[in-house]
Amino acid sequence: MTAPVKVLLIFVNEADVWHNRPLYQVIVERLRQLDVAGATVLTGLMGFGHHQRMHHKGLFGVSDDRPITIVAVDQEGQLRAALKELRTMVREGLILLLDAELVADVVRS
Amino acid sequence: MTAPVKVLLIFVNEADVWHNRPLYQVIVERLRQLDVAGATVLTGLMGFGHHQRMHHKGLFGVSDDRPITIVAVDQEGQLRAALKELRTMVREGLILLLDAELVADVVRS
Amino acid sequence: MTAPVKVLLIFVNEADVWHNRPLYQVIVERLRQLDVAGATVLTGLMGFGHHQRMHHKGLFGVSDDRPITIVAVDQEGQLRAALKELRTMVREGLILLLDAELVADVVRS
Repeated sequence: MTAPVKVLLIFVNEADVWHNRPLYQVIVERLRQLDVAGATVLTGLMGFGHHQRMHHKGLFGVSDDRPITIVAVDQEGQLRAALKELRTMVREGLILLLDAELVADVVRS
Repeated sequence: MTAPVKVLLIFVNEADVWHNRPLYQVIVERLRQLDVAGATVLTGLMGFGHHQRMHHKGLFGVSDDRPITIVAVDQEGQLRAALKELRTMVREGLILLLDAELVADVVRS
Repeated sequence: MTAPVKVLLIFVNEADVWHNRPLYQVIVERLRQLDVAGATVLTGLMGFGHHQRMHHKGLFGVSDDRPITIVAVDQEGQLRAALKELRTMVREGLILLLDAELVADVVRS
């Protein structure tokens, strides 16, 4: 049960919004609605994008503008279809696709 | 000193257990016992898998069911040997392998 | 606007220093000075490298030796040029390069 899949990486910021809601939440919920196999949201300690502003997590971890990395996994066609919609939501950030081999997609009951 | 290696990604949940211990801890300790070159455990803010349940970190970060991403690195044979054992432990989750180039594996004294 | 790029992964520890400053901060700032397209720093819950010491985040999350994963994105030449300098700073850790497709590099005003 191994198959070629793609890993989608979307780098945005925690403070980015889409219609007054956190962008990363909107993206992950939309990926789920589109029946993408899986997605997870990772927060970074610091980072930067092409704008060259450095983002730091605040002293007590209360900053709300940490770098966000969204990782999603599915077959290429599924992710490219989702991207047509998602890329219009990203006003600042990087979007990448990587090749991967699906070793297991387990749902046991 | 560059060489082809693989990156193993295992997506599980923080609350998953194996013989009453956190699954991600058991997996990382087993990878170490198997002498895999390196591994790290990343926690996510939110995420979902094929079960379609959405996992959220709780309001005060006290949720114990955050999405977990285990990243391990080694040569392909080493990781596939480990997977024979590890995949039986994962009752719900995605397992991927990606190609990578090992630029440096540094241990200086 | 899709193009082949590379993803650079550097696995170090939070307590690693370079001239009395956290190594991961020095690396990310240097990547920015070198005009690399983007970079982010992810902290792990636990992990290990070839040294076989296991790193755990402390009970109250106050440990300062968590595993650190630096993710950077750019064209191959740009990253390899940066690596000539960066790899001398890493005294213990893994450095990888992965192939990726740049789907979008968005900076809207």
